[in-house]
Amino acid sequence: MKIAELSRRTGVPVPTIKYYLRAGLLPAGERTNANQARYADLHVQRLRLVRILLSIGGLSVAEVSRLLAELDRPRPDMPAALGSASLPPALGTPPDPPMLAAALSTTDAMIKRWGWNAGADVPARHAVADVIRALWEMDLNITDELLDCYAEAAVASVTADRALCDDVRPADTGAHRAVASIVGDGLIAALRRLADQSPRDMADDGTGH
Amino acid sequence: MKIAELSRRTGVPVPTIKYYLRAGLLPAGERTNANQARYADLHVQRLRLVRILLSIGGLSVAEVSRLLAELDRPRPDMPAALGSASLPPALGTPPDPPMLAAALSTTDAMIKRWGWNAGADVPARHAVADVIRALWEMDLNITDELLDCYAEAAVASVTADRALCDDVRPADTGAHRAVASIVGDGLIAALRRLADQSPRDMADDGTGH
Repeated sequence: MKIAELSRRTGVPVPTIKYYLRAGLLPAGERTNANQARYADLHVQRLRLVRILLSIGGLSVAEVSRLLAELDRPRPDMPAALGSASLPPALGTPPDPPMLAAALSTTDAMIKRWGWNAGADVPARHAVADVIRALWEMDLNITDELLDCYAEAAVASVTADRALCDDVRPADTGAHRAVASIVGDGLIAALRRLADQSPRDMADDGTGH
Repeated sequence: MKIAELSRRTGVPVPTIKYYLRAGLLPAGERTNANQARYADLHVQRLRLVRILLSIGGLSVAEVSRLLAELDRPRPDMPAALGSASLPPALGTPPDPPMLAAALSTTDAMIKRWGWNAGADVPARHAVADVIRALWEMDLNITDELLDCYAEAAVASVTADRALCDDVRPADTGAHRAVASIVGDGLIAALRRLADQSPRDMADDGTGH
């Protein structure tokens, strides 16, 4: 198909497609003459993926580029490839260093309880510790039991991410697993906001909604 | 306390505090002479809140300002006050409008199943529909059963957000509920990434991790 047809099928404007081609987010089409190239279904799929990662995923062009390179490898390391996508930004310098150490130790105890495989450098480990520190600073007491409620919800939703990819051909799994993770992040965030508006759950919190 | 002490207790540099004061994110201190003001514990609390919303929450100064104004009202409308914080950015123009209508209808059916109170204009409703559309575009089949798995995880984590605030005095509930929601968003996102690295859960997905 020509670039105009690729644009029509994906909803991405032609100049944007040309930009993605220059940035290497989309492989070049098969050149038919000096000014035209032919694109295949592969380009439609890749373009949809790029658009989802940039919009819903909120990734930068550089992050999408890095993620695509990882996905094109035979055994992509998914969590590492996602990097800090969807992770909360860091809280910044702690006024109280011992509190940060305590938050990391609470995080590590939870990682151990759940049998997760997270090294000291994993960005998500530091993000969890930051979040625990933020709760403590606001005098909100997050117990291990409550932390485990969040962990259980996370595991259930990650299991759902994987179930989304059950019917995908093994060769295509990398890109689909990335989309399922990124889109799953957005889905759970949006559903949390909807659940927070539930009259059933709000009945006892005194705000009158 | 003087502004230097406020800075020391919160880890926020003095020039940043002065910027927040000018932007109205922090109420003015009690003026002691032409060049000095005295700050109270209330300022420490508010400054911690502002820092968490700007960093972990990823809110803009304007969004924090709007949220604080809502929280200072007697009966804050929390989900509305949070606006599009933590919601995935929009997917953009649909190449296939009927697909968007179908995604909205799938979303509304789920909202009905869960008894949620979401009007047509609620940003989270459109965010869920966008996410469903993204999955369909990637040929990932999200069934109602799978959607309900995510909804269940969302409800469980929102219940945990609320439990975080159980010991908070009713007068302080607004700010703490906002922090619990924002920080809960970050917590679940980070835990999803950790859960995705679990060797237990990865055992059968063929990526070899």
